Amino acid sequence: MERVKEQLVELGSLGRKNGSRVKSYEELSADKGLLRLEGNEFSRASKDYLVEKMKEAGLKVRFDRVGNIFGRKEGKDPGMKAVMSGSHLDSVKNGGQFDGPLGVVGALEAVRVLSEEGFEHSRPVEVAVFVGEEGSAFERGLIGSEVLTGGISYDEVLNLANSDGELLKNVLSDYRGEFLMDLGEVEYFLELHPEQGPVLDTEDIPVGIVESITGLCWLRVVIEGEENHAGTTPMKMRKDALVRAADMVTFVHGKALEMAEKTGGSFVATVGKIEVHPSATNIIPGRVELGIDIRDINSDNIDVFIAAVNEKAAWLGRAPGIKTKSELLINKPPSLCSKEVVETIERAARELGLAARKMSSGAAHDAQNLAGKVKTAMIFVPSMNGISHSPWEWTSWEAVEKGVNVLTRAIKELAR
Amino acid sequence: MERVKEQLVELGSLGRKNGSRVKSYEELSADKGLLRLEGNEFSRASKDYLVEKMKEAGLKVRFDRVGNIFGRKEGKDPGMKAVMSGSHLDSVKNGGQFDGPLGVVGALEAVRVLSEEGFEHSRPVEVAVFVGEEGSAFERGLIGSEVLTGGISYDEVLNLANSDGELLKNVLSDYRGEFLMDLGEVEYFLELHPEQGPVLDTEDIPVGIVESITGLCWLRVVIEGEENHAGTTPMKMRKDALVRAADMVTFVHGKALEMAEKTGGSFVATVGKIEVHPSATNIIPGRVELGIDIRDINSDNIDVFIAAVNEKAAWLGRAPGIKTKSELLINKPPSLCSKEVVETIERAARELGLAARKMSSGAAHDAQNLAGKVKTAMIFVPSMNGISHSPWEWTSWEAVEKGVNVLTRAIKELAR
Repeated sequence: MERVKEQLVELGSLGRKNGSRVKSYEELSADKGLLRLEGNEFSRASKDYLVEKMKEAGLKVRFDRVGNIFGRKEGKDPGMKAVMSGSHLDSVKNGGQFDGPLGVVGALEAVRVLSEEGFEHSRPVEVAVFVGEEGSAFERGLIGSEVLTGGISYDEVLNLANSDGELLKNVLSDYRGEFLMDLGEVEYFLELHPEQGPVLDTEDIPVGIVESITGLCWLRVVIEGEENHAGTTPMKMRKDALVRAADMVTFVHGKALEMAEKTGGSFVATVGKIEVHPSATNIIPGRVELGIDIRDINSDNIDVFIAAVNEKAAWLGRAPGIKTKSELLINKPPSLCSKEVVETIERAARELGLAARKMSSGAAHDAQNLAGKVKTAMIFVPSMNGISHSPWEWTSWEAVEKGVNVLTRAIKELAR
Repeated sequence: MERVKEQLVELGSLGRKNGSRVKSYEELSADKGLLRLEGNEFSRASKDYLVEKMKEAGLKVRFDRVGNIFGRKEGKDPGMKAVMSGSHLDSVKNGGQFDGPLGVVGALEAVRVLSEEGFEHSRPVEVAVFVGEEGSAFERGLIGSEVLTGGISYDEVLNLANSDGELLKNVLSDYRGEFLMDLGEVEYFLELHPEQGPVLDTEDIPVGIVESITGLCWLRVVIEGEENHAGTTPMKMRKDALVRAADMVTFVHGKALEMAEKTGGSFVATVGKIEVHPSATNIIPGRVELGIDIRDINSDNIDVFIAAVNEKAAWLGRAPGIKTKSELLINKPPSLCSKEVVETIERAARELGLAARKMSSGAAHDAQNLAGKVKTAMIFVPSMNGISHSPWEWTSWEAVEKGVNVLTRAIKELAR
C-alpha cells in the first residue's frame, strides 16, 4: 500500500501551492487546494507521471485522439473482452488529491498486485485515464467517457475551448494519439472513487457499492419584475422580483423534502445559484435568475419535480408586472449499474471482512457514461466529513487501502 | 421659462455621452445616462456654468471650505435672516438631468424673476448648491448639508476619499473658499426636486408638498450555513443558508405590507441586496448576506420593524448548523418640515390654480438635514413613470414650469 500512498501524494503535489506533498489531513489548509485543470502544466505533468508508472508496471500505453489514456495488460485469452478500470486526473479549481487519482492509481495497483501474485487472468485489463472529467477547464465535463460512448464526437471534443480560448486539441497536442478504443471489446468497467458525500463517513462504513448514478437536471428560472427606488415606491406598487424568487426557493426546498421523504431519500433539489439585478440595498430588485439542481435515481421523480417547478414559475408569472421563464439546461437520465458487477464487489468486500452498503451516487462520474455500454459499477470510500471539491477533501489512508483491496479482488474475479 | 429649460439642458449635457443635449423624453437612451460624480471634470464644468449664471443674475457668489456654493441677493433689510433655496449638481452613475439641477436652476430663476419684477423683498435670498449629495463619488452622501448642520466636521469632509483614493479637498481645490455659512442667519429653506417615485405621476398631480422626509435604516443580515455538494448531501443533512435567507425575504416583505397597511402607507422595507456564496448551481449555499432598507416618517415604526427583523434573524439562527447576525449600518431619523413653509407652498399652488398634495419623501435630500436647523419644506414635481437614478429619468417641461412657478411664489412670500 506504500506504493499507492506514494503515487497519490506525488500526484497531489502537482498543481498544489509550492508543490507541497500532503500526507495527512492535518497538513491541509484553505490556501493549498489543487489547481490541476485539464491540460494545464500540472495536468500534463500528472499524465507524464502516470504513464511512467504504467510502463514500469509493464502496461502497453495508448493515447486516443482526444487524450484518453489506456494502459493494457494482456490476459491469457487475447480474444476475450477486457475488464476496464480507471477514473480521471484533472481537478476542480481548489480541489483535493483523491477525487479522480484514487481510481486511476487504484486500478494500476490492482494490475500490479495481480502480476506480483502471478495470477493468470484470461481477460485483458485496461487501466483508463479519462480526459476532462471535471468540466473546470473546458466547456463541459465527463468529456473522455462521453466521446467513448458516443455522446459527443471526437471532432467536437478536439475543438472545445477552455476559458483562455485555447482549444483542447492544441492544449493536449503532446498527449493525444491515434488509438481508438472500441467499447465492444470491453465487458466490465469499475471505478473506485471517494463518495463526495457524508453517508459512508457518518455511518462509519468503509465500502459503498454504487448501484446507480443519479440523473441530473439543471433548470434556469428567470423572474422579471420592475427595478425601482426602495424609498419612494409604495409597498403596494412594487413588482419585486426577489420576493417572488424567495417564494420559489422556499417552494423548491419544501417540495424536495417532501419528495425525498416519499421516495426513500435519494431525491435532492437545490437552488444553488441566485443572481439579483441590480443588487443594491436601496433598489427594488428588477430581475432574479435562479439555478436549480435536481437529482434522483428515478427519472420519473425528476420529471414530476420539473413539472412542479414550471407550474410554480407560471403561477408566479401571473402576478401583475411579473414575468417568469423556466429553461431546461441539462437533463441527464439516471444510470443503472450492472447487477453482476455489484454482486462481485459485494462478494469481494465480504471476503475481505469489510462492511459495505449499496448506495446511489449523487455526483456525476465517467462510470455513468460507461454504464450505458458495458457492465459497470463503482466502489466508494468515505470522504472525511462528506467534503469534496474543496481544499479540505480527504480520505484516510486506511480507507484508501480498503477501497483498493476491494477493487483488486473484484477485478481479479471478473478477469479470471 | 426658456431660460430654465436652456440651463437644465446645458447642465444635462455636462457628463452625458458625447455631451449631447437632451430636450425631450424621446431623445433619452439607455447609454446616455449622466456621469457627473462630485468633483469630476463634468461636475467642475457644471459649477463654472452655474457660477457664471449666478453672476449674470447679480448674485454675490461665495464658496465655503468644502465646496458648497452660495449666491446671495440682498434684501431691503440686511439684518433679517435669509430665505435659502437650492439643491445639488452632482449625479449618480448613469443618472438623469433633473435630479439636483432642477432645484438649483429653479432657485436661481426665482431670484431672477423677483428682480425682473422689481419686487422689493426684505429678506436676503441665498441660492445654494450643496456639494456631494449623491454619495456616488465620496464615501457618503448629503455631505454639503451635513457639514452645514454639524453632522460632520469641515475637516472630516475635506479628507473624504473618492473611489480613486483622491481627497475631496484636492479634487475641489479650485472650488473651495473661506466663507462660513451660519444657519443662524437663515430663516427658511426650500428645495424643489423631482419626486423620484410614482405618486404624482400616477395621480396626475403637478405639485407635491413634502411635509416630512422619511427616516432611513439599513440592516445587514448574514446567514451562515454549510457549503456542500448539491448532489451528494441528502435533503435532511443540509444547512442551506439560502433557504433561510428566502424565509427572511418573505418575512420582510410580508411584515412591511402589514406595517404599510396599519400605519397609512408611507412605511416601506426592501431586501434590495443579496449576496450568496458560492452561488454555483451544484453547490448548497453556505453563506448569504442580505441588505435591508427600511423607511418611514415615523421612527417608532422603524424601531418596531428593526426589532422584528432581529427577532426573525435570531429565530433562524436557532436551527442546527445555522448562524445568523444582524447589524445596523445606517439609522437616520425622519425629518419633519415646517408647517409655516408647507402652508406657504400650499397657498402658492392654490393661487396659481395648481392641484397639489401633501406627501412624505421616501428619498433622502439635503432638505432633511436643513430641517433640523431652519424652517424647511420641499416642492416635488412628477417623475415620469416614477423613474429616478436612471438614464430614463424625466420630468416634463410643463411640470418643470409649474414647479418653478410655485417655488418662485413661495420664496417671494417668505422673503417679502
